[in-house]
Amino acid sequence: MKTFRDPVHNIVSIDKQSEKVLLDLIDTREFQRLRHTRQLGLSSFTYPGAEHTRFIHSLGVVHLTKRFIDKISTLKNIDQKYIDELHDNRMLALVTALLHDIGHGPFSHALEKTTKIKHESWTIEIITGDTEVKKILEYHRSGFSHEVAEVIRRTHKSKAIVKLLSSQLDTDRIDYLIRDSKFTGAGYGAFDLEWLINCLRIGEVNGDTEFGLDLNKGLSIAEDFVMARYYMYVNVYFHRATRSAELIMDKIFQRAIELNNLGKIDLPEDLAEIIIKSSTSKTLTNYLNLSENTIWHYIVLWSKHEDNIMSDLCTRLLNRKLFKEIQIEGNLIDFTEKVINSLKEHGLPREYYLLTDEATSSSYKDHYITQKPKSEGSENEKEASEQIFLFDKSGNGIELSNKSKIINQIRNEGIKIDRMFIPEQIRRLF
Amino acid sequence: MKTFRDPVHNIVSIDKQSEKVLLDLIDTREFQRLRHTRQLGLSSFTYPGAEHTRFIHSLGVVHLTKRFIDKISTLKNIDQKYIDELHDNRMLALVTALLHDIGHGPFSHALEKTTKIKHESWTIEIITGDTEVKKILEYHRSGFSHEVAEVIRRTHKSKAIVKLLSSQLDTDRIDYLIRDSKFTGAGYGAFDLEWLINCLRIGEVNGDTEFGLDLNKGLSIAEDFVMARYYMYVNVYFHRATRSAELIMDKIFQRAIELNNLGKIDLPEDLAEIIIKSSTSKTLTNYLNLSENTIWHYIVLWSKHEDNIMSDLCTRLLNRKLFKEIQIEGNLIDFTEKVINSLKEHGLPREYYLLTDEATSSSYKDHYITQKPKSEGSENEKEASEQIFLFDKSGNGIELSNKSKIINQIRNEGIKIDRMFIPEQIRRLF
Amino acid sequence: MKTFRDPVHNIVSIDKQSEKVLLDLIDTREFQRLRHTRQLGLSSFTYPGAEHTRFIHSLGVVHLTKRFIDKISTLKNIDQKYIDELHDNRMLALVTALLHDIGHGPFSHALEKTTKIKHESWTIEIITGDTEVKKILEYHRSGFSHEVAEVIRRTHKSKAIVKLLSSQLDTDRIDYLIRDSKFTGAGYGAFDLEWLINCLRIGEVNGDTEFGLDLNKGLSIAEDFVMARYYMYVNVYFHRATRSAELIMDKIFQRAIELNNLGKIDLPEDLAEIIIKSSTSKTLTNYLNLSENTIWHYIVLWSKHEDNIMSDLCTRLLNRKLFKEIQIEGNLIDFTEKVINSLKEHGLPREYYLLTDEATSSSYKDHYITQKPKSEGSENEKEASEQIFLFDKSGNGIELSNKSKIINQIRNEGIKIDRMFIPEQIRRLF
Amino acid sequence: MKTFRDPVHNIVSIDKQSEKVLLDLIDTREFQRLRHTRQLGLSSFTYPGAEHTRFIHSLGVVHLTKRFIDKISTLKNIDQKYIDELHDNRMLALVTALLHDIGHGPFSHALEKTTKIKHESWTIEIITGDTEVKKILEYHRSGFSHEVAEVIRRTHKSKAIVKLLSSQLDTDRIDYLIRDSKFTGAGYGAFDLEWLINCLRIGEVNGDTEFGLDLNKGLSIAEDFVMARYYMYVNVYFHRATRSAELIMDKIFQRAIELNNLGKIDLPEDLAEIIIKSSTSKTLTNYLNLSENTIWHYIVLWSKHEDNIMSDLCTRLLNRKLFKEIQIEGNLIDFTEKVINSLKEHGLPREYYLLTDEATSSSYKDHYITQKPKSEGSENEKEASEQIFLFDKSGNGIELSNKSKIINQIRNEGIKIDRMFIPEQIRRLF
Repeated sequence: MKTFRDPVHNIVSIDKQSEKVLLDLIDTREFQRLRHTRQLGLSSFTYPGAEHTRFIHSLGVVHLTKRFIDKISTLKNIDQKYIDELHDNRMLALVTALLHDIGHGPFSHALEKTTKIKHESWTIEIITGDTEVKKILEYHRSGFSHEVAEVIRRTHKSKAIVKLLSSQLDTDRIDYLIRDSKFTGAGYGAFDLEWLINCLRIGEVNGDTEFGLDLNKGLSIAEDFVMARYYMYVNVYFHRATRSAELIMDKIFQRAIELNNLGKIDLPEDLAEIIIKSSTSKTLTNYLNLSENTIWHYIVLWSKHEDNIMSDLCTRLLNRKLFKEIQIEGNLIDFTEKVINSLKEHGLPREYYLLTDEATSSSYKDHYITQKPKSEGSENEKEASEQIFLFDKSGNGIELSNKSKIINQIRNEGIKIDRMFIPEQIRRLF
Repeated sequence: MKTFRDPVHNIVSIDKQSEKVLLDLIDTREFQRLRHTRQLGLSSFTYPGAEHTRFIHSLGVVHLTKRFIDKISTLKNIDQKYIDELHDNRMLALVTALLHDIGHGPFSHALEKTTKIKHESWTIEIITGDTEVKKILEYHRSGFSHEVAEVIRRTHKSKAIVKLLSSQLDTDRIDYLIRDSKFTGAGYGAFDLEWLINCLRIGEVNGDTEFGLDLNKGLSIAEDFVMARYYMYVNVYFHRATRSAELIMDKIFQRAIELNNLGKIDLPEDLAEIIIKSSTSKTLTNYLNLSENTIWHYIVLWSKHEDNIMSDLCTRLLNRKLFKEIQIEGNLIDFTEKVINSLKEHGLPREYYLLTDEATSSSYKDHYITQKPKSEGSENEKEASEQIFLFDKSGNGIELSNKSKIINQIRNEGIKIDRMFIPEQIRRLF
Repeated sequence: MKTFRDPVHNIVSIDKQSEKVLLDLIDTREFQRLRHTRQLGLSSFTYPGAEHTRFIHSLGVVHLTKRFIDKISTLKNIDQKYIDELHDNRMLALVTALLHDIGHGPFSHALEKTTKIKHESWTIEIITGDTEVKKILEYHRSGFSHEVAEVIRRTHKSKAIVKLLSSQLDTDRIDYLIRDSKFTGAGYGAFDLEWLINCLRIGEVNGDTEFGLDLNKGLSIAEDFVMARYYMYVNVYFHRATRSAELIMDKIFQRAIELNNLGKIDLPEDLAEIIIKSSTSKTLTNYLNLSENTIWHYIVLWSKHEDNIMSDLCTRLLNRKLFKEIQIEGNLIDFTEKVINSLKEHGLPREYYLLTDEATSSSYKDHYITQKPKSEGSENEKEASEQIFLFDKSGNGIELSNKSKIINQIRNEGIKIDRMFIPEQIRRLF
Repeated sequence: MKTFRDPVHNIVSIDKQSEKVLLDLIDTREFQRLRHTRQLGLSSFTYPGAEHTRFIHSLGVVHLTKRFIDKISTLKNIDQKYIDELHDNRMLALVTALLHDIGHGPFSHALEKTTKIKHESWTIEIITGDTEVKKILEYHRSGFSHEVAEVIRRTHKSKAIVKLLSSQLDTDRIDYLIRDSKFTGAGYGAFDLEWLINCLRIGEVNGDTEFGLDLNKGLSIAEDFVMARYYMYVNVYFHRATRSAELIMDKIFQRAIELNNLGKIDLPEDLAEIIIKSSTSKTLTNYLNLSENTIWHYIVLWSKHEDNIMSDLCTRLLNRKLFKEIQIEGNLIDFTEKVINSLKEHGLPREYYLLTDEATSSSYKDHYITQKPKSEGSENEKEASEQIFLFDKSGNGIELSNKSKIINQIRNEGIKIDRMFIPEQIRRLF
């Protein structure tokens, strides 16, 4: 038994024989790379304890996935088919749990914006491309890599496994809420994990397999869980200082490309390849070489770059001289014009010195945000995954907001934050 | 009031007016740099939660230093002179608490070995050299930077402040034990901080000011604290996998210099300067630019270096293919010879593939280790700092091991670990 | 410094000199009596860890009251008059915190129902009557006992002290939520106490002094606190098994009086006096002698009483054979009639075997419940105390539900639970 | 699944079908009685949080026993016979875990001293006598009650089960250390339970089945566990104020018997029967009726008794006016004589006002104390149970003190505390 110590789950154990494939995957270069990818990007600017990586989060999701499967397997009065389905696909679930974030690169959101490639695409590429991970998956069982990819794409035929790893109540989300709460030191994400697991149920709702909670025992924990998530958004994920830092990182990438086009900067080769080719298959090796370390190394170099904008932005990140939020007063258009004029007077190009943040913007959506799902694109699938079901004794699933007015209230609200950031010396003028 | 959230102390508050100098120091480039320096170096290879930085540790030491001073200030029946001394030097203590680790660079131990410059020297250089930190200190009060340096050098005339920050029971040590325990997830470093602070005393022992604990109430917590430290050494700081990774890092630096001397490698400029000049005053700027990010960035590059040794060592760190400990059997010299022969047969130069670890080696001593202090260099001062005193109601201080046979037992034992590491394929042959 | 260890606050310290009056009060017979009064009455039937007493809760409220006053005293930008008011009335606040529950007797709710005397009346009587407590208060300062009584009656001129100890965000409520959550083991009552204290503010709202939270930082913790309280009601305070046990205790008292009137039972003298005289001043000595111990001692005796009803009810409590909730089906009146008929057929008098519970009933109100305050008696005062205010930088207080739709949602809902309990053998018939 | 919430283990689950016998046993009057028996007797005088009962402790031991068996069952490389033995006797182990403390009465130590009947005898009597418990055990399986009794007597043929429930590393001890630490709020008893369970092993040592810990991973946790126990003795179980209260309770029983012999007191019938008959079989019903409630009820009555000694002792317990420890100075015999003379001058009979405490006295031994076992009665069995074994990879067990000098140090020391308590007004004279 290989044991990892974890401040969240205490001991995460992986069996050296029966779960060898997990250990082999952990030992790949692609997975070890996650040691250098922080779970919360630049949140440590705001919460200095939040240095935890996607490496330990991934182990945590494996651990929770095991616990969920084990719990369901001991339930009485549920259809045996669910137990069988989870049993038959146990290793698939664990492997997908381990690999679900493997495509994340450094500062994913900024990089995704620049390359227009989502981290999910990299995940699929790493699982199915020319990688150590792929080899180990196929060695384990021919065709296994494609099965894992199907679970990640949510197209796998085992709906139980898909939902276990990707739904409102999935093991990914549960782990990151508790973990982010613990490492930031902000108490908001805390909820009673043991009770949640104790209340776990599975059943069929509208023809789909769904995980959910016991109607009698689980209402309060369901509410508490959703509230925890809500608080983490408001107080941590969308914290103004963190967002400001992330927007600066965006702008550094943007400026790097501009300067590169002008031949005025040496981009690190791996980054250059990715940006230019914008193709996962051609640049996978480059992507795997790239880490936060490289970006930070170049930010130090660029803080002395001859381009004033570049050196200023990089210095700001290094010295934590972040842009400050300015409260919009009066008419938005008039106000914005005044800000732009002021920036112009100080020789600060608006493109780089007026940062706007819509926290419902796509940069976060795929990870965390619950927005009014009904008004969005692929509604039905999305909607399903954003629901929590409460199962009564007969196994009927009722959607949470039918039972909880509080949740219904939050649900209809969503979290929308519009902000404007500018340098402090300009803000002082207003 | 500026508040930082901390998983260890929950809230660390700094007053925006009366403690402005602390906030100004935090905002310097030199201090922000600690965000990129992990408290436990490569321990996250073993304990993947241990990604916490010297940045948050330093904030924690400020917090504890405040709590210690506040506690002493409320004690009855102690000589008023101590309260006055702590009161008069409060800001000096807090500033030194904040800056005590500011000279740490990336992978301190390996770098110290290579450059022969201790991190304390860098700390002094940053505090007294041409830096933002120095400017802020002198702006606060002329001569303040030298006072801070004196506390760090342990030569400051306020013995209370010196001991508060550097002794067996100092706020640095207390913070790192609890913090390292919490972030590794290994329970060993836990002890009851609140009770320890509640039992805090101050007094004179052998003509020296000493912090200590109440004789009646504090014996068990004193023992518990020393035991916690002991367990952290055995299980965390000296963990075999961590030590193996650190030794590989040593060897990477060593190989880099060799290849540099042969003109076969491009060292990052900042690193090159430090290694060549080996002077803190000439290379301070380079040192401040250097971070774990740069080292890791180059380890990725060097993992594809044409030099087999270099690429192998770098690949080992990236893929966590660490060297394994081999149990020495029979006569040490004979055994070592057999190992060397076996390495030779496989074309592995002994200099890079037989790593020996003496965990009592100097690399750790200044941070953590308690060794038989009487057999060491500047005995008296060192010895004093390794003792814990228990004060009776009359204010007499008794050294802990006179009251605790358990501690006496540990004290005489010390922690000595000798290990031999080799590549796994060679170990398998034995 | 006298220190108490507390699983909730860790160390509760009381100064032997400056706070001697608190220690003297703790050492009175009237206060030591609280060691025999459980904070949650019969909740330990449901949550077997919940054996904590009003003794330790009272110490906890003293501790929190100190922390609140200390926090407010360090705030910048608030009117100095609040700091002065809290400073001048500090000892009054601490003493009232200590004594606020001193009038609680065994199984308060049942006893209050029987005697028609509220525990607050006993509190006032103990503070102002012929007691050790009164003597110590008057020895401390002439007229002090009446001042304490005024704070408890909410008529004291220092509104800050009154609100500190009796409002939606008072130290009593905060302590019992955290404490009850911790000792029951049900995670619902957990919230981030440190952050709440960090966000504490004071100011004037509608001409009244009010404690509140910082508008910018405190919204989430305000919501979290109110939600915690809501969950504790639903899951702990109103738990069906606890309520069933409490209703049986009610019925035991009722039967005891009936049998006493018939001369068929020996009541313990102290209980008899209280029930017959129904006067706090004449029976204070009896009341102080009475404890849960006496009641339980007699329940054992009465479990063998010749009266079948009495012996059955007592045996039920001793063996935890509680009445079970029956779901009302169809028309309430028809259903009730069917239940009554069924009880009659089994020779079970409806008066003792059909227990109805309205959890909004008066039995709990004075302790815990927030009900639609606007529809109640002394509306204005009540309403004020049920609000939480958020203070902006200018010191303006905004009522929480104006800022939080979630809280607004809960507020309008209230917690109303109607239940019907009957013996299990009858329930099985339905 | 019936779930209990527990502040220590969070959720304790018992299966309604397969573990029905446990639920039936919990519902007996004899087991429900444990709700009224505090785990730590009068320790709540010192640690006011320590009101937890033997009821919840017994549930905790069931929970840990399950976890131990489950852990051993998943171990590789151990002899299958152990797994089979634990599997075959699983329900026996769980039932014994539940019932191991069922014979405890109110203030066991004082009562044992008075009646000369140990609580273990009552346990056996309840399990094998005319009780609900016996009926349920025999209904479960004929002869089962005798099997349970054999495990408690340590004579059962399954050594694994005997050791699981009664040895240095048994589930009883582990639960009470953690629980007592948590409820007292004194941090000393804390150790990393998860890691201890993770390191659990089983094997044969000197022809006996023994539980133990993994040699490589378990040394530190073994030391930590033994140290935790040591600290709990010194700081909690042997706390001077607790011991003083217990000695007063002793004296109250002693005086009650004397007054009863003189016909000057009405003892509660159940207590009188037990004291007079001193037989478990004849007085079992009385014993089961007796609880702390009855004793406390009478202490209130007796606090107004005409006998001065009786009323004084009872008043002291009610008002927490405990006797104080006096430091013995000079020659013991001379000093004692001086104390006795002083008591005589104040009209205080030495028999009731000079309390001596030998904390190695038999009153605690069977529960908690580790004394120099080799110098005691039934050495071999006792000695075995006080050892912890560390198992190497080949399954060889090495006794802990051979590997740990710290433990060896404590082991040879033992805990011996001799104290003398007298009323405070006399102590002041010295």
